[in-house]
Order: sequence, then structure tokens, then C-alpha cells
Amino acid sequence: MISIDAEPQPSDLGDVRVANRAVVLRHVRLHAPCSRADIAAHTGLNKATVSSLVTELIDRRLLRETGLTENRIGRPATMLVLDGSRYASLGAQIEADELVVVAVDPAGSRLLTWRRAATAGAPGDTVRALAALARRAVGRLTAQDRTVLGLTVAVPGLVDAAGAVPLAGALGWRDVPLAADLRAALRDPGIAVGVDSAAHLAVLAEQRYGGHAGTTDLVHLTGGVAVAAGVIAGGRLLRGSRGFAGAIGHLGLDESGPPCECGRRGCLTALTGLPAVIRRLLPDVDADGPPTDLLPDLERLHVLARTGDAGVHAGLADVGRDLGRGIAVLANLLNPEAVVLGGHFATLAPWLLPAARSELAARTYAPGAGGCRVDASTLDRIAPALGGATAALSTVESGRLPAG
Amino acid sequence: MISIDAEPQPSDLGDVRVANRAVVLRHVRLHAPCSRADIAAHTGLNKATVSSLVTELIDRRLLRETGLTENRIGRPATMLVLDGSRYASLGAQIEADELVVVAVDPAGSRLLTWRRAATAGAPGDTVRALAALARRAVGRLTAQDRTVLGLTVAVPGLVDAAGAVPLAGALGWRDVPLAADLRAALRDPGIAVGVDSAAHLAVLAEQRYGGHAGTTDLVHLTGGVAVAAGVIAGGRLLRGSRGFAGAIGHLGLDESGPPCECGRRGCLTALTGLPAVIRRLLPDVDADGPPTDLLPDLERLHVLARTGDAGVHAGLADVGRDLGRGIAVLANLLNPEAVVLGGHFATLAPWLLPAARSELAARTYAPGAGGCRVDASTLDRIAPALGGATAALSTVESGRLPAG
Repeated sequence: MISIDAEPQPSDLGDVRVANRAVVLRHVRLHAPCSRADIAAHTGLNKATVSSLVTELIDRRLLRETGLTENRIGRPATMLVLDGSRYASLGAQIEADELVVVAVDPAGSRLLTWRRAATAGAPGDTVRALAALARRAVGRLTAQDRTVLGLTVAVPGLVDAAGAVPLAGALGWRDVPLAADLRAALRDPGIAVGVDSAAHLAVLAEQRYGGHAGTTDLVHLTGGVAVAAGVIAGGRLLRGSRGFAGAIGHLGLDESGPPCECGRRGCLTALTGLPAVIRRLLPDVDADGPPTDLLPDLERLHVLARTGDAGVHAGLADVGRDLGRGIAVLANLLNPEAVVLGGHFATLAPWLLPAARSELAARTYAPGAGGCRVDASTLDRIAPALGGATAALSTVESGRLPAG
Repeated sequence: MISIDAEPQPSDLGDVRVANRAVVLRHVRLHAPCSRADIAAHTGLNKATVSSLVTELIDRRLLRETGLTENRIGRPATMLVLDGSRYASLGAQIEADELVVVAVDPAGSRLLTWRRAATAGAPGDTVRALAALARRAVGRLTAQDRTVLGLTVAVPGLVDAAGAVPLAGALGWRDVPLAADLRAALRDPGIAVGVDSAAHLAVLAEQRYGGHAGTTDLVHLTGGVAVAAGVIAGGRLLRGSRGFAGAIGHLGLDESGPPCECGRRGCLTALTGLPAVIRRLLPDVDADGPPTDLLPDLERLHVLARTGDAGVHAGLADVGRDLGRGIAVLANLLNPEAVVLGGHFATLAPWLLPAARSELAARTYAPGAGGCRVDASTLDRIAPALGGATAALSTVESGRLPAG
């Protein structure tokens, strides 16, 4: 295997302890319940090291003993699982028409899922509304004796390294210092705040909780007003040099196609984004109307499709073909194991997927589309918020223990 | 920074030694000449560890002392550099019309560069020709008292994990077990053989030796008969789940465009590949003729461009625009710091780049094309072979010492 010029990490004692905590926590997350001996056997760490780390992690309420013992030859072993009871992390999702807040615990259990209709307008209004929801969530979790590790917010647009939003067409935002504004709004009660693109966070959630969990080469295609791709390659999120990777919503598929908010014609978003699908298939609807009608219109479309409306079926097959053209670009360039479709693509998947898969197979250079599968997300349109909550766990999962 | 679900590596003593050798070698490669104290200071390794590793690496003729001492306060320090004298590695490049073989030493010096006209036909003929060249190169290097660490061969097409070639349209190859055939042909003198795609290897060479050396998010677009992209993201080569990443040669840019060997119309290759450029700009030429005419025709075109032929200038601007559309897809999806153009794109760069850059800026969603630069490769059309030679060094560079 050709090695690349990534910087090899020197090993000194402090880093080793942190790294080994991460190894133990990850092993338990993936294989619980498991014994100390199992951890040592699988990870190559020696038993004394494992014992010492497990003692520390139990003391910090990140692991717990279940009291179960395995049926095995020899001395019974106490089994370990992640302890989800002491901490929580928050994720949020800003959409054109709603706010979503979720909380998870370190064991991966969902603690709360809130959706609030909220038309995105001035960033300041969104910051206020989101901060209020976040404060209420923190209060709820604190009352359960949990420490909230942080909040990461998903934005349907470009997010730079400082957590600012240079451009989010779906919200009509340009140059919004979102992370700074949220941190100011949440100084009391002092939650650690991160901001990232919805596409990046959604693919993290898919890799953690979705139908293709654990896949090392995976793409999540967000639906909604803004179509974008989150990419995991070689097991790691592909951010690009400025964090702007995945912006394929304005990939030009048809120069003579419908106009797009980006100024061009026939982009992937203009052909397959939610307003475009509604406009194409429900001609009576004013699809340039307020975003508050998007979800009800999607539901109408869904009902028509489910009840066998031939026009809607044919229209969705057309949209599926356009979607398949976009997916073929991803398959050719990235050769992923799977492309997972989120947002309205997931809702309408049964009527989109056949045409999308067929177009993908026809347009991918590698035989058999290079093995690329296309499936609907199972994360119920909240993959970005779930990914945010997972991201907010990253400090602990990388072996750095929270204060106190 | 959000941590991803890449498997954290446990630290045990054997791996630590190997990893630390890699750290020392990499530091010297990037910062030579440097002292043992410099290595310790920059890498965080303690001085005793560094001393021990340096002694071992000098003994194995991978490092050497230069005898220079720095002007600094205190005791003079002996400086270290990579020792290139003991080893060599080979890279090769199979093209439609030539074979290229290069050798480098571990210090990065080029030891030989051979180009042989050779029309790619039956794979068996190419294997024989390449094996003969490789044997001759090994003989030359062995006569210099060097041990040849291995050979990695670049193919303009898809290469799977076993080193077989499912598809290489540029050569007319399908399902060729190239690595197996080469290994059989080179059993005497027993060179370790690897095979990889030209696009992957070219971007490795760019990252090591090119004008954007060290960039963590970089794309190399090969020219020639087959247009493909090699991608480095987050410092690592992006291979995809089966190694087929980067196959954008058949990205559809214009449904009504010229037909392509892949069966579709208006692909990036059909618009900007070398035969297409010759066909568009030298209409008297039979561009479906033998590939042996490609380089002479390219040279004719180059002369016409250099001497100010207005028709050729206008034609190259058109090609540049199409190229820019393809580069915009890369910029949108990958957000690289730079896209480097190889092959004939590099030769014709002065007349392609202005239109390409302009089209890129217009079609990238992020402002300022997300910072993406477009430049010609400085590696004289042999980036794939150079990348192969670099790849064949990877065992040593990752800290595993060659036998004996």
C-alpha cells in the first residue's frame, strides 16, 4: 500500500495515554459488551494498560461494568459497556423552514429530538431562536444530572474554519459570523459551540448511525433547498482546503434547463432540489412561495406518489434520472461504496431510486458503477443535527477527558 | 476539529520504533541539513530516542552525517542529510505511444530517465518491453552498488487492489492482470512490483516534487489520451473503495458534443483529451490515426501556438473553457488548494489557462473558486513514473528497513 505524505505522529507518553483512551472507548463502542481481556486481545494493548485505562474511564463515568459475565472457559469476566448517563452532547440543524435540536449521550442514545417551524430570515433572529432552544435543552439535560459537552450546529451552506458562513443560498445568507454570534448568545450557560456544514455533519451521522455505518468511502447527498454532498474518503471527512468541499449543488447538468438561484441554468439543485421538484410535479403550487409550504407540499407529493398518481410517478422518474447524473459524477470522482440520499430524496426514494440507479450504471466509467450503491437515508431527515451531536462528542471520544 | 471514525492506532513498542523511524526520516527529508537536536526539538521525540534511531539509520545507510556544523551558540552539532547512495527505486509509465522508466534515490535525486517509443498493443508485448527496460535499469543501478527497492508502474486507466487493470481505454485494455504478469516477467532478478493508476501516482509526484509540493488538498489532472484526476485530500491519496477514484474523463459536459470512445458524447476526454485537441485544431490530421503521431502532432500544435497562429489560439481558448468546466467540478466537490495540469495540458498551458481559470471562477459555488489555483505541472509529463518511483520507496519511508 502506497504511503502518503501525511505527517507520521511521534509517540510520547502523554499522547500515548490519550490515544489509548480513544482506542479503548472506540472498541467498547463497537463491540460492547466486552471484557478487559477482549479489549486487550483486539487492540494489542497489554492487560495492565487496559486495566488502568478502564479504571480511569469508569471513574470518569464514561464506561461502566454491566455485571454480566460471559459463558467461557475459565474465570468469569466482567463485561463493560459505554456509560451514557453522565454526559450529553447537542446537535442542531438550521433549515429554510425549521430548526432541529437533538441530544445524544456518549453511548449513542437519543435523549431529545425537537423540531420547530421557523422561517430562516435575518441571521440574528435565527441565532436568538436557536440559542433559546439550546438553553432549554441544556436545562432539560442538566436536570437529569448530565454535563453538556457542547453543541455543534449544521448549516445548509459553506462554513469556513472559523465557523462563519460565507454563503448559504438556501437561507439567503452571506458572510454571517455564525459561530461567533452563537457563542455570544450562549455565553450563559457557557456551552462550547461549533458550526459546520450540514453536508459534512450528515455524512458523519450516516457513518455513525446509518444503514452504511462504518463504511470508509461514503457520500451523503442532502436534499432540501440546497443539494450538497458530504464525503467520507478513507474513513475521514473530506473537507477541502477551506472546508468548502461537497458543493455540487450547482453542478451544471443541462445548459438549457431551469434557472437557478446561483445565476446559471440546469444545475443539480435547479433540477432536483425540493422547490424544483415541487415546481415540476405540482404545477398549481407557487414554488417561489414561502419556504413554510415546502414540507406540506412534499407531503402532498408523497401522498400522490403512494396512491399511484401516474403523472407524479413519471415526473419522479425524470427527477431520478437527473439525480442519477449527479450521483454518477460522485461515483466517478470518489468511487464510494455507497451514496446515501437524505432530505426529500429519502422521502421520495421509492420513486426516484430505480431511475437514479439506472442512470448511475450507464454513466460510471468503472464497470458496475465501481460497486457504488445508492440508498435512502434511514435517519429521518435529521442527519445533520445528529452529526452535530456526534461532533460535539469528539473531544471525549478522542481520549481527552472533560474537566472535573 | 471534528474527529472522524478512523481507527485510532494503539501504541506498542514494535510499532513505535517503526513509526519513529518514519518521523525521523521525514523530518530530515523536509529539513536537511539538520542536527539530532533539531529533530528532537521539532518532533517531540526525546534526544536519546533520536540518537538511537539516527545511529541505526546511519548504519543502514539511510542517513549520513555531512560533517557540517552550524553556526550556533554552544557546542557545534553534526548535521544530517538523507543518504541516497545505497538504494534506488524504479517507476514506470505506460502510455499509448511510449514507455517511460525513471529511477530515484531515497534522497530524491533522479538517477535515470528513459523514454522509449512503444505503441501499446497486446498487453503481453508491453509487459515484455517494460520488463526488458526494467531489467536493464536494475543492471545499471546494481552496477552502482545500489539495492533496488522495487518498481511501481503507472497505467492510464483503472487499477484494482490486486494490481490488475479492469479497464484502460487509452490502451484498449480490458481485464489485464498486469501486476501478476509483470511479477512473473521480473521474477529474475526478483524486483518487488506494484501497479497503480497514472492519475494516483502523478498526484503523489506533484505532492513530493512539484510546484505545489506539500499541499494537503491537491488535484493532478493527467492529459494525454485518457484524462483523469489524481486527488490528495487531507494529505492522503483518495483512492475510493476499489481504487477507481478520479475517473472524470467521461464527465458529460455537452450532450451534443463529439462522440467518445466510452460510447457517450461530449465527455471531458472527447473535448479536451489529446486526440480531441489535435482533431479540433489540426483538421488536416487524421486524429483517429496511430497513436505514434500524437506527440509529433502535439509538437506541431505547440509550434503554431508559439508563433502566434490566431486560429490555434482561438481553438485552444475553446478547449481551455471546456477544461475549466471540468476543473470547476473538481473545485466544487473537492475544494483543493490547487489543480495541476499534466501531459499535453502542461505543454499547451499558456493558451489554455486564461480561459480555464475564468470558467473555473464563474462556475465554482464558493467565492473566489474557494481559493483554487490552476497551474501547469513542472514535471515534464513524467509525473506518473516519478510517482511510481516514490511509491516504491514507501516501505523504507514508513520506517520498515530493507532486509540486510
